[in-house]
Amino acid sequence: MVSGERFLVEYLITGDEAAAYAKVQDICVEQTVEFPPELIRDTWIKEDVVGKIENFEYVSNNLFKAVISYAVETTAYELTQLLNVIYGNISLKPGILVNRLDLSLGLLSAFHGPRFGREGLRKLLQAEGRPLLFTAIKPMGLSAAELGRLAYKFACGGIDIIKDDHGLTNQPFAEFTERIKYAAAAVNKANLETGGKSIYVANITGPSDEVIERARLAKRLGAKGLMVAPALIGFDTMRLLAEDNSIALPIFSHPAFLGSFTASETNGISHYVLYGQITRLAGADATIYPNFGGRFSFSKQICESITAATAVPMGKIKPIFPSPGGGITLPLIPELLEVYGEDVIFLMGGGLVKRGPDIEDNCRYFRQLIEGSKAYSA
Amino acid sequence: MVSGERFLVEYLITGDEAAAYAKVQDICVEQTVEFPPELIRDTWIKEDVVGKIENFEYVSNNLFKAVISYAVETTAYELTQLLNVIYGNISLKPGILVNRLDLSLGLLSAFHGPRFGREGLRKLLQAEGRPLLFTAIKPMGLSAAELGRLAYKFACGGIDIIKDDHGLTNQPFAEFTERIKYAAAAVNKANLETGGKSIYVANITGPSDEVIERARLAKRLGAKGLMVAPALIGFDTMRLLAEDNSIALPIFSHPAFLGSFTASETNGISHYVLYGQITRLAGADATIYPNFGGRFSFSKQICESITAATAVPMGKIKPIFPSPGGGITLPLIPELLEVYGEDVIFLMGGGLVKRGPDIEDNCRYFRQLIEGSKAYSA
Repeated sequence: MVSGERFLVEYLITGDEAAAYAKVQDICVEQTVEFPPELIRDTWIKEDVVGKIENFEYVSNNLFKAVISYAVETTAYELTQLLNVIYGNISLKPGILVNRLDLSLGLLSAFHGPRFGREGLRKLLQAEGRPLLFTAIKPMGLSAAELGRLAYKFACGGIDIIKDDHGLTNQPFAEFTERIKYAAAAVNKANLETGGKSIYVANITGPSDEVIERARLAKRLGAKGLMVAPALIGFDTMRLLAEDNSIALPIFSHPAFLGSFTASETNGISHYVLYGQITRLAGADATIYPNFGGRFSFSKQICESITAATAVPMGKIKPIFPSPGGGITLPLIPELLEVYGEDVIFLMGGGLVKRGPDIEDNCRYFRQLIEGSKAYSA
Repeated sequence: MVSGERFLVEYLITGDEAAAYAKVQDICVEQTVEFPPELIRDTWIKEDVVGKIENFEYVSNNLFKAVISYAVETTAYELTQLLNVIYGNISLKPGILVNRLDLSLGLLSAFHGPRFGREGLRKLLQAEGRPLLFTAIKPMGLSAAELGRLAYKFACGGIDIIKDDHGLTNQPFAEFTERIKYAAAAVNKANLETGGKSIYVANITGPSDEVIERARLAKRLGAKGLMVAPALIGFDTMRLLAEDNSIALPIFSHPAFLGSFTASETNGISHYVLYGQITRLAGADATIYPNFGGRFSFSKQICESITAATAVPMGKIKPIFPSPGGGITLPLIPELLEVYGEDVIFLMGGGLVKRGPDIEDNCRYFRQLIEGSKAYSA
């Protein structure tokens, strides 16, 4: 009735030992059969469909670590149902946090993951052996032409990847088609003039029935990458975008609306799993997240854990780029180079404007900081 | 450049007065222009696109309430971008909770909301003046034929709405098409025999590129309603399902994977907004959530706040049914009738099996408890 292949989920459980163990037993049932086990008549359902406790250990006072295995068949090989088995109903119960995933090879082979990954994206940008530079056109309210002029300056200054601010969708100030046209043309013009290889990444987060259409339109209009916020459109729609051969553009995952999953120490999903393992499984080539020391709340240790997850072995699923952003400024770059090494995409928005009124010059300075330093190759 | 129409979001902010006020000022910027305001040259962007603080007041020690207004144009009249303006980036910052929405009529008119609502669903079920009865076929592992036999018993026993367990998608044990065929036929057969009006609700939560297809297939095969988990497929896909005239079935919203938004007292989205206002705006006809006193963590007060939100005036958006579930058992019904009144859908799963081996008889007893009592009409 089942193949015997199982995948593992490591949970952190809050409570005293007896309560924590009872919680783990409950997870095995809640995430699968959701039915009183004593009333299940089929032995194989009780033994194979219900989750199994593979490990249970003490971590610290009132904190336990448990590993549960699930039959791969429970997921129907769907990302939505996989997420449901991992953390569907128990997201509603206190004291349970998803800490690590260890997906079996058969299950992993059902997913394509990122189309480009680190290697593919570097090839596209012709940028080897150094961190990549990333910025956003904004603020909301500017016209498509004004946003295009900004994109042009960024590209002339040597920024590799120029994206829409994540709040730009289809506002009347700069409608989707107009914005993409201007921004893509501007980056293209700059490349022709400078010999650069910058790409424009369109934000296509939007209505469910328009996302794929916007992706195709953006590509036709010259965008060379796509950004989506998976918490808004669904992780599985990101997967679909990554797998669609008629689109075939790199995908940048934005963390908007995702914050509550990591807001509590006793509930939710670890940064490692959410920004690393799940985002990667769902096909992103780069995972954007708030950097430490900026205006958000992630610690340096958390950022390092995300970076580790972007490259941890996951069958044939490629490693992707960590892309810290949010409050990154030019003076921080030397320290960040030491932390992240060369396999990183630095997303700098306001920081590129604050240095002085000449944006192009600020970008060149950013590029020099990156290229001049060998901190990351140490 | 903007119409002047603005909508309001009430946030609860944790911190001392100065820190809380600074946080509110930051929200105005972060959720709109995401750009240093002092560097914005266009006055109208600074004045109209940036959020405005409409109110700021002390609630209790280290807790403040703030109302921010946003220009409706910032949302592009898209549900995804509306959620992004309300809580996109700031979900990543500590100490901010979305407490209430007050959406303007122009913005509300961009959304259809539920197709049926309370009134439409009652008409469909021909069930007036009493709570509705709701159950699920399970456990995962049963064959389509076995699930069908269960559905038949529930319908014969007088359960109004019989749904798939939320973990049943397209597992090999009972593939989607087979399951829908058996369950829909079983409920139909029972109706013909008893004169009942029970409906079968298919769980169509699944891959992004299959959800609409599954909805249409389920309808063709005889399902009379659909269930989705918006946290897994995206709230906007639920909206799309509700608006699609070729589908035109009532939508039941399931809370799987949604728990982290309400897990913290200082971060997230209130139950009122999440299970009430947003779920309703996104087109659900009933909002399923964990009942108090069951195996989940919602309090009675929280459940009452969700119920209030299902019927609070929202322009032309219809009132919907609160549908408490999760650990509801027959002995609890008298108390629940007093709390919820008649406008409620009681979702009972395991509770219907625990009373004794004759499921049909258990259902009839449930129905009698509901019809016999006048507690709710008091």
